[in-house]
Amino acid sequence: MNLEQFRQYGHEMIDWIADYLSHPERYPVLSPTQPGEIKGQLPSAPPEQPETMAAIWQDFQQIILSGITHWNHPGFMAYFANTAAPPGILAELLAAALNVNGMLWRTSPAATELEEVTLDWLRQLLGLSDEWQGVITDSASMSSLLAIAAAREATNLAVRTLGMSGRDDLPRLRLYISDQTHSSVEKGAITLGLGQENAIKIPTDEQFQMRPELLEAAIQADINAGHRPFFVCATVGTTSTTSIDPVPAVAEITARYGLWLHVDGAYGGAAAILPEMRHILAGTDKADSFVVNPHKWLLTPLDCSTLYVRRPDILKNAFSILPEYLRSAETDAQAVINYMDYGVQLGRRFRALKLWFVLRSYGQSGLQQFLRHHIEMAQTFARWVDESPQFERLAPTPLSTVCFRASPPGVENEETLNALNEMVMNRVNERGQVFLSHTKLRGRYTLRLAIGNLFTQESHIAEAWAQLQEAVGDWKIERLRD
Amino acid sequence: MNLEQFRQYGHEMIDWIADYLSHPERYPVLSPTQPGEIKGQLPSAPPEQPETMAAIWQDFQQIILSGITHWNHPGFMAYFANTAAPPGILAELLAAALNVNGMLWRTSPAATELEEVTLDWLRQLLGLSDEWQGVITDSASMSSLLAIAAAREATNLAVRTLGMSGRDDLPRLRLYISDQTHSSVEKGAITLGLGQENAIKIPTDEQFQMRPELLEAAIQADINAGHRPFFVCATVGTTSTTSIDPVPAVAEITARYGLWLHVDGAYGGAAAILPEMRHILAGTDKADSFVVNPHKWLLTPLDCSTLYVRRPDILKNAFSILPEYLRSAETDAQAVINYMDYGVQLGRRFRALKLWFVLRSYGQSGLQQFLRHHIEMAQTFARWVDESPQFERLAPTPLSTVCFRASPPGVENEETLNALNEMVMNRVNERGQVFLSHTKLRGRYTLRLAIGNLFTQESHIAEAWAQLQEAVGDWKIERLRD
Repeated sequence: MNLEQFRQYGHEMIDWIADYLSHPERYPVLSPTQPGEIKGQLPSAPPEQPETMAAIWQDFQQIILSGITHWNHPGFMAYFANTAAPPGILAELLAAALNVNGMLWRTSPAATELEEVTLDWLRQLLGLSDEWQGVITDSASMSSLLAIAAAREATNLAVRTLGMSGRDDLPRLRLYISDQTHSSVEKGAITLGLGQENAIKIPTDEQFQMRPELLEAAIQADINAGHRPFFVCATVGTTSTTSIDPVPAVAEITARYGLWLHVDGAYGGAAAILPEMRHILAGTDKADSFVVNPHKWLLTPLDCSTLYVRRPDILKNAFSILPEYLRSAETDAQAVINYMDYGVQLGRRFRALKLWFVLRSYGQSGLQQFLRHHIEMAQTFARWVDESPQFERLAPTPLSTVCFRASPPGVENEETLNALNEMVMNRVNERGQVFLSHTKLRGRYTLRLAIGNLFTQESHIAEAWAQLQEAVGDWKIERLRD
Repeated sequence: MNLEQFRQYGHEMIDWIADYLSHPERYPVLSPTQPGEIKGQLPSAPPEQPETMAAIWQDFQQIILSGITHWNHPGFMAYFANTAAPPGILAELLAAALNVNGMLWRTSPAATELEEVTLDWLRQLLGLSDEWQGVITDSASMSSLLAIAAAREATNLAVRTLGMSGRDDLPRLRLYISDQTHSSVEKGAITLGLGQENAIKIPTDEQFQMRPELLEAAIQADINAGHRPFFVCATVGTTSTTSIDPVPAVAEITARYGLWLHVDGAYGGAAAILPEMRHILAGTDKADSFVVNPHKWLLTPLDCSTLYVRRPDILKNAFSILPEYLRSAETDAQAVINYMDYGVQLGRRFRALKLWFVLRSYGQSGLQQFLRHHIEMAQTFARWVDESPQFERLAPTPLSTVCFRASPPGVENEETLNALNEMVMNRVNERGQVFLSHTKLRGRYTLRLAIGNLFTQESHIAEAWAQLQEAVGDWKIERLRD
């Protein structure tokens, strides 16, 4: 492919993307493809000779697209919906062309310094104190893993040098999450060699918020048993219900016991950009680490997670290794940040560029506008649920995600209700205009409508609501027939 | 930013990139900016109101670009040079627009199935057996971490559930690398809680290759001491010198002791696409895991690393967690791969797309052509060094990277030679046409000329050689003056 062809297909793809974004509804949001269907259309061996971009581009449109679940679709309301906003897409194009690896300051000073600047902008937007220093990672999974690793380093138990195996001087290290904490925190504990059983799940209250008194009791019991508590994760916007843990109360406990407090605001944290929602980060300034994902509810294309720490030296101590081949004069002079020192990966994409494009394109007011709109739409939907005799809400709706289920009058059996709701979800998803996901709350199959795509409007919410009602109606008719 | 503006700036950026790639030499390859210079030109607070793309685009060109070290520049010969080839850039544009998160098969079947297909294509290109199953990660750092974690899982010591701390039934877990192994493997051991001191560095021979007899002795000594050896990393193309460890001999040892063998071919592995270089992967089919980075020497934009394992179930056992909110019918039916199960991160970009675009655009023959060209240029440069009385080679050149230094006749003092070579490198780098990096070999400051950019031609190598000679000449004149 020569550069004239690059130009030609580049223009064609830009136009295609503009058309795509103007009306993604032409595609079913959830791909209707069957397992193996895409693979079956692709050659099993690589081409010997170069192929034309015409052929590749055609296969993209004819084969790949049919197997895409459209995350950038306004009807995407599963998991946590998100957006690759147009300015972010352009930034990714530029980042790919420059192919910057921001492992060291020297390997692109602008990548490092723009990361510092955008992270500080985001910190200000969230209303956090200036004691925080950030680092961009690829995912909340990774951000949380780094936070646990930093907490382990803060124990001064020489885990970095001696490890944890075969040591009789090392107590059992214990960390505390809630029964609603995202699975990635547990996975982080497993990865770091801490063990799934040492990630203690603190029960939550009826609003799915961690119960501080049970956290303290668990910590105390572990201390009495000779274990070593070291890390607590509180969540601002849990995955199932977007519940908000009582961070101030948790922070009091972690301060009293000298534990590292990590606040996972991967999704929910973004809402703090709204003055009226700022309260959700109460207590977070007393935490040791905090994560929010711009690729979730802040319009930035995947992947972009931001981890903030108040003691960056500890995170650096946990990870920094400096072989000769990565040394440089400015590193020796301690004049710069080398972000490779603050995490697992040496190679680092230029992710700050898209965050910068997005923060500037929307500005504080633009971000506030769409966040507010999403929360309002979720409140509207929650009201519809509450007012309907056919449905019920299964959790509070503090942010932009509604947890609910169909519960037609006269259907009391929980198994029947679970089966009904699974069927309702599948039927809506198959129609291709809306994509919902589910969770289980206290054993109940729960539907989740998560609003997070920039282009989602009232009409999409209304469509989802109409389809849900229709699916329940169909079920009732079929039931009468049987 | 509306979609008409997206279209307008998208076209403008495509043209800018085509111009940029046609002549990146207009920019100094190593950014000449000073620490803080970029940051100083950016506002310290985020904008309140939306800004125009015109303003952002202008700042990109006027501020950001001056702080870019141009990895996609043919004069980039530092670390391991790489390329974001034009088809790969277009694929990244499309991936950003779709914003696919390939965590589950369901969240984009095409992302998962294209990952399976491209990984199998690459396996075939490398001549590996069909026993391997792959997964795309972001970096070799991560691929190696996953490999060590899988090896730990394979010990059946219940580390996943019980962790490693506070256990008196767990021997000290030991892993073996060489004194030339990339630092990321050591970092992986630190991260996983195994401890830096338990990553035993086996000495290398005069060609910087791991000495198998010393590996076996170290394993035996650890067994005698009651420790538990479990993992060995052999490297095909080490970072400092691109030396190739004797994988067949190492594989015999790991088989005899029942240890997990990981082969790190992040850079060098790509060369096996050439029939005449296929021998570098001798023994690799007996390994348990293997990594090669398409973003290094296979034209794919950062980030794209591929990890192959022969027992994917073990990797899955090490990482898989399935909370209710990520369950789906096809997962329950075990009909699909969910790549989130094979690593740390839940969120996963659609990286297979760029690998597919690149493998198809170049085909086997196109890949072979540029790999062969790079190796030939490195051999040419090595010959120039060998034939010059002013320079000497400090390591064999099996691939496309040359390790050498200036060693003018009559200069014997090692400290003087080290200072001279550091000065020579800095002087060449400051001129902005060539970017070299360094390492230390047996205490000697060693210059590295790493060829890996698609657009690097003989003229760039000749320019590097001319500048090196000039820098040494200048030094000699200055020395006479002093």
